[in-house]
Amino acid sequence: MDFAFDERTEQLRAELTDFLTRHVLPAEPAYAAHVAEGGGWDSPPVLAQLKSEARRRGLWNLFLPDRRFGAGLTNLQYAPLAELTGRSPALAPEALNCSAPDTGNMELLAGFGTPEQQQQWLHPLLAGDIRSAFCMTEPEVASSDATNIATRIERDGEHYVINGRKWFSSGAMSPRCAVFIVMGKTDPDADRYRQQSMVLVPRDTPGVHVRRAVTVFGFTDRAHGGHAEIVFRDVRVPVVNVLGGEGEGFAIAQARLGPGRIHHCMRLIGMAERALELMCRRVSARVAFGKSLAAQGVIGEWIAEARVRIEQARLLVLKTAWLMDTVGNRGAHTEIQAIKIGTPAMAEWVIDKAIQAHGGAGVSQDFPLAMLWTQARTLRLADGPDEVHRMSLARKELKRYQG
Amino acid sequence: MDFAFDERTEQLRAELTDFLTRHVLPAEPAYAAHVAEGGGWDSPPVLAQLKSEARRRGLWNLFLPDRRFGAGLTNLQYAPLAELTGRSPALAPEALNCSAPDTGNMELLAGFGTPEQQQQWLHPLLAGDIRSAFCMTEPEVASSDATNIATRIERDGEHYVINGRKWFSSGAMSPRCAVFIVMGKTDPDADRYRQQSMVLVPRDTPGVHVRRAVTVFGFTDRAHGGHAEIVFRDVRVPVVNVLGGEGEGFAIAQARLGPGRIHHCMRLIGMAERALELMCRRVSARVAFGKSLAAQGVIGEWIAEARVRIEQARLLVLKTAWLMDTVGNRGAHTEIQAIKIGTPAMAEWVIDKAIQAHGGAGVSQDFPLAMLWTQARTLRLADGPDEVHRMSLARKELKRYQG
Amino acid sequence: MDFAFDERTEQLRAELTDFLTRHVLPAEPAYAAHVAEGGGWDSPPVLAQLKSEARRRGLWNLFLPDRRFGAGLTNLQYAPLAELTGRSPALAPEALNCSAPDTGNMELLAGFGTPEQQQQWLHPLLAGDIRSAFCMTEPEVASSDATNIATRIERDGEHYVINGRKWFSSGAMSPRCAVFIVMGKTDPDADRYRQQSMVLVPRDTPGVHVRRAVTVFGFTDRAHGGHAEIVFRDVRVPVVNVLGGEGEGFAIAQARLGPGRIHHCMRLIGMAERALELMCRRVSARVAFGKSLAAQGVIGEWIAEARVRIEQARLLVLKTAWLMDTVGNRGAHTEIQAIKIGTPAMAEWVIDKAIQAHGGAGVSQDFPLAMLWTQARTLRLADGPDEVHRMSLARKELKRYQG
Amino acid sequence: MDFAFDERTEQLRAELTDFLTRHVLPAEPAYAAHVAEGGGWDSPPVLAQLKSEARRRGLWNLFLPDRRFGAGLTNLQYAPLAELTGRSPALAPEALNCSAPDTGNMELLAGFGTPEQQQQWLHPLLAGDIRSAFCMTEPEVASSDATNIATRIERDGEHYVINGRKWFSSGAMSPRCAVFIVMGKTDPDADRYRQQSMVLVPRDTPGVHVRRAVTVFGFTDRAHGGHAEIVFRDVRVPVVNVLGGEGEGFAIAQARLGPGRIHHCMRLIGMAERALELMCRRVSARVAFGKSLAAQGVIGEWIAEARVRIEQARLLVLKTAWLMDTVGNRGAHTEIQAIKIGTPAMAEWVIDKAIQAHGGAGVSQDFPLAMLWTQARTLRLADGPDEVHRMSLARKELKRYQG
Repeated sequence: MDFAFDERTEQLRAELTDFLTRHVLPAEPAYAAHVAEGGGWDSPPVLAQLKSEARRRGLWNLFLPDRRFGAGLTNLQYAPLAELTGRSPALAPEALNCSAPDTGNMELLAGFGTPEQQQQWLHPLLAGDIRSAFCMTEPEVASSDATNIATRIERDGEHYVINGRKWFSSGAMSPRCAVFIVMGKTDPDADRYRQQSMVLVPRDTPGVHVRRAVTVFGFTDRAHGGHAEIVFRDVRVPVVNVLGGEGEGFAIAQARLGPGRIHHCMRLIGMAERALELMCRRVSARVAFGKSLAAQGVIGEWIAEARVRIEQARLLVLKTAWLMDTVGNRGAHTEIQAIKIGTPAMAEWVIDKAIQAHGGAGVSQDFPLAMLWTQARTLRLADGPDEVHRMSLARKELKRYQG
Repeated sequence: MDFAFDERTEQLRAELTDFLTRHVLPAEPAYAAHVAEGGGWDSPPVLAQLKSEARRRGLWNLFLPDRRFGAGLTNLQYAPLAELTGRSPALAPEALNCSAPDTGNMELLAGFGTPEQQQQWLHPLLAGDIRSAFCMTEPEVASSDATNIATRIERDGEHYVINGRKWFSSGAMSPRCAVFIVMGKTDPDADRYRQQSMVLVPRDTPGVHVRRAVTVFGFTDRAHGGHAEIVFRDVRVPVVNVLGGEGEGFAIAQARLGPGRIHHCMRLIGMAERALELMCRRVSARVAFGKSLAAQGVIGEWIAEARVRIEQARLLVLKTAWLMDTVGNRGAHTEIQAIKIGTPAMAEWVIDKAIQAHGGAGVSQDFPLAMLWTQARTLRLADGPDEVHRMSLARKELKRYQG
Repeated sequence: MDFAFDERTEQLRAELTDFLTRHVLPAEPAYAAHVAEGGGWDSPPVLAQLKSEARRRGLWNLFLPDRRFGAGLTNLQYAPLAELTGRSPALAPEALNCSAPDTGNMELLAGFGTPEQQQQWLHPLLAGDIRSAFCMTEPEVASSDATNIATRIERDGEHYVINGRKWFSSGAMSPRCAVFIVMGKTDPDADRYRQQSMVLVPRDTPGVHVRRAVTVFGFTDRAHGGHAEIVFRDVRVPVVNVLGGEGEGFAIAQARLGPGRIHHCMRLIGMAERALELMCRRVSARVAFGKSLAAQGVIGEWIAEARVRIEQARLLVLKTAWLMDTVGNRGAHTEIQAIKIGTPAMAEWVIDKAIQAHGGAGVSQDFPLAMLWTQARTLRLADGPDEVHRMSLARKELKRYQG
Repeated sequence: MDFAFDERTEQLRAELTDFLTRHVLPAEPAYAAHVAEGGGWDSPPVLAQLKSEARRRGLWNLFLPDRRFGAGLTNLQYAPLAELTGRSPALAPEALNCSAPDTGNMELLAGFGTPEQQQQWLHPLLAGDIRSAFCMTEPEVASSDATNIATRIERDGEHYVINGRKWFSSGAMSPRCAVFIVMGKTDPDADRYRQQSMVLVPRDTPGVHVRRAVTVFGFTDRAHGGHAEIVFRDVRVPVVNVLGGEGEGFAIAQARLGPGRIHHCMRLIGMAERALELMCRRVSARVAFGKSLAAQGVIGEWIAEARVRIEQARLLVLKTAWLMDTVGNRGAHTEIQAIKIGTPAMAEWVIDKAIQAHGGAGVSQDFPLAMLWTQARTLRLADGPDEVHRMSLARKELKRYQG
């Protein structure tokens, strides 16, 4: 159980820290202004510059362990880098071509795609030229139970015909979002975990209706392509568009979720660190009732408690990364659930305190705190709500003592 | 300590409940559509209809205890009515001409305004023809300590000259917002609580710059006139525009805050009730892992705990209202602080659980939950953060046992 | 909904306050010394004096609403008096002959006892001459589900034969505890809620084995007769010893629990008040790092939060008392559950903070805090654990919105 | 940052696990019976056997890194072993001669003692023949601020004369407790951190009055020598009895506290694991309302949350141990504070849930839970209350961003 950062990691951390300091953080006001002006459903121009600079520095596709396509880092190597991007989550992950949902989609295409699928979709994604969406959650059912998914994917000769309604398809409002990975039922009568398949659907396929943007606590997440509601009505794609094979949808979804969850957790550590730093700076600078906010006892309680919680959460994320590297994603399943339960709640708590310490400024657009909070809060229910993960983890724990 | 609702209250409750059921709740989708389409900085057309209907039913200016101008209800009579409006906080309070900050501003004009000030500003406000803003909070200082306020109001012959920067001036983005009540220092050398004055500033006065809208967790609060940042640069108004007298600013602010705080708390009870109802309906309708969400043990915990917390908070709000009616706002100061501490936190907790039970829908615009949560959360820091109220309450408690 | 205290209540409050100040609180050290010396399983001599004085002052059997036997107070009249006794829970309730489990047992005998049963057991209990125990909880089963109870009560001619094992039979270690009310199954094949009966068992009946004292967080509760484990082995009592009729056990238990629960909650308010007072006094008197503990910010947070929670809990207890008086115990069932959920948790929180503010002294025998905490904590699981009450309350809440 | 257990650690873990399984856990009932019978102020006979067996297996003095006297383990090697002893904290630590306060006292004697002091006191302690107490906390002052300590140690020729009152001197009720390390002021006029000294006081010195046992939530902790209040009245000891030199008291106390705190935290991890195991077993075995407690949703929440919290806390303890080994105790100061804040609270939470899942049994002597809880709770205030550690940690955090 060795979490020490090796030489390559330390070098990338130094490079990334420099990039953040010189380029990303200074770009935040331009980004905020773009959002404030209600620009289009895509990233502001500054991101193109950041991407170019990141690529030049070798900070590109760090998330992808597959050496054929990505940086070939282990999870333990990637963890501290992803954490750093969490300090500026609106800009840094995309600048490094390491932002969800493209990362998960690239992983699927790298792992399960045919050479043709990789040629058509993976390479433009790796180059940061197009974006992609993952269409799984549905408004009509409790999607935390994947067997509830109702979208139908019916075979008709050499085509699949797709009918259904999806939402929270992040990124899909962006005009650069060129392809959707759609999960649906190809065989409702099959075994519970063999009913689903995933199919690649080009955005411009007839019958695809991107209906509207779903907001998140008032945020449109506009500059990242928002969160779309999409109706698929008699959408026809060739059968070669299936990803990994018919009936593989559930298994592929599971494979996708492990790395996706830990990447979220890594970034959440950085988000909490950013919030703690902002809180420390703010309370040192403001005075009320004759002394600095930092000297008001309860603020110190928050700061200390935040530090303890961040340290604990980071170590469990690192251990999970190390486990994934050593025993595989499946072997780290319990730990992945544990960090999915613990990390968003930790970050939510820390950011909430930072908001409180900022007063009105904390809920406003002048600080990233409200946006950070929203992301942490949403991750308590996205990718499976806490309650589902807790029940699953508890079952495993109980089994250790039952017969 | 009698909290029973008298005949008039019961009659108004019945009337208001009918109004909510027949008119307000059915208007929520139209309102949401207006917001989604990013309309202007004012209420959608449907509100004009609701206001007309409310007025016809005698549900108008219920908040104002002053019989010369308002409905003449006691706080205890108004409490259950304000609670009901909290069930649809985006529409109902304004429909009844009972929405902040106009309510507080009307109270000030009714209590401290000259006949001329009342003629010019109070009557159009009572008629719902114009709106108003209250300019107190400043971005540069910790405004929870009112002595920090830096805006200068300098006498120059028969005028005051105002210079300063305010923000979170709610409603001020609305073109119908015709007048600002501005708090600032007329005498920085006076006794700590005599330095401040309040001055009426017509919106169209030269030097008034409404610079931008501050967002709250991504929400613009557009249909209520948003929350403005306003710069006052050499703004000149006649000295007769002072409210209540020079040096009275702090005292008037205190007078305004008591009723304002309890009104917020009354509505928060209704907001929590709405969230609980939405949660109950949702978990009864959704199924995951073979049983309804309502049957998953932890959801029941939330529902029961929510009910207990709501009941407790409501009783303390009612007791506070009763106290204000019997011993005056000053005599109820401790209780007002107590509900300001307890009620937003209660509502935030209940709404958070309702959001979690809704999954992605809970954070979206399809349910009022994200907006409700944002209001509850913001009230933990608006009108004085929890921490300031707690310190003050603790000092009073400690005094009981100190020699 | 009128919670005002009437004249009789105010007069009794004054009398009781005087009694507490002059007699009960000054007797606490003698009581503590008795416990420290590990005296026998009965109250120390000082209690006899307190009982005599209480009786002389008319502060006797206040809990019993039945005018034939007790003070004839309503629940709303009794509530503030029971709260006061909670300030010194080791002495005051027993001094007034208002301590559990005798109170509940007297209620049962008053409500369901035959004249002979009343003659034999109720009158000596009312006089404070003997004590009694209630034998319901069993070590082998989850007794929160009353249908689990396994003790058998079999009819054999004119006798019942009892076999089973009970524990947490409070008071039964006392030699003055003369009679046990035993709950068990007379008809395991009957309808779920008709299987149980209650039978009066004199302590000296052959086959009754008081085996040992169960401790509670290390406390023996020695001076109140402790908490006994009792084995009933072929214990024979005449059939006339049945209370209220065969098959009535479940119904009678329910009747007993309502008042029992609210009495606990009333006293818990007083316990929390006592803890808050001790905390305020302590933090005013102690200095660390150059200023009084009271001036350390986080202590103020505790004090304010404690005050808010106590006020809210008290009001819900008063409302529940008022409801019981106006619509009956059954009509107040939901509120009784609500206070059973909310009040012990509130008191536990307040006392925990008071302990922390006292440092080592807080956990020691030099202050009543550790004992108070233990009682509050235990009431989160005694008389039905929180979780069972929450599930039941949630079901009722959900029904309002289902079909 | 490598937390992997090396070969020696794994071997000792296996040995210790075997010892726990075969000897310690089976001895718990005998221990409980001894306590129930209210034996004397010393360990029951079974401990002598356990000590002998532990010594035979090489499980002796594992805590002491100094190879001259102890096992010479690093903190990282000792951590998992101390955790295991926490599973049976009443027996295992003492069985291995690794129980507080003797461990800390032996460290002081090993590090600061003269050869004569080591000969007289350290060697018998290492052999487990005598016990020792650490007399620092005083009833009259807030001892969390060490400068408050009021005990006077005055030089009188070749002797020190000690006057003062101490309490919570753990172990001192035991007749085998032969020596006290007393902290007091030798020079009240010296620099703040040079006023204190530590002096060795044999128990039988005239003027030493062990007055009484302080209880902890009702527990006497009898079998570990309890917690004594001791009055020192004109107690004279030779000046050679000073430990480490005059004025060194504060520095030595700091040196003692680091290892002491992490040892407590290591054991708390084991205590939490024990509680979680007991909870899992209990809820699997009990049925209420037609299904096992394990199937009631909220119990699963507790189990999962407990697992997440334990894992996080353990990792931070291991990191702290690793840091102490690599950069020294002083370099790990912040981390030691972090685990002192986080670990007792974690354990308290887990044990509380386990108690709740056990119902009445949880608070009784039939399970170790009530005792475990008491220890966890007490560690939130012993060795410096959470609040003091949080303020100190916050100051350090704030400094990173100030000037």
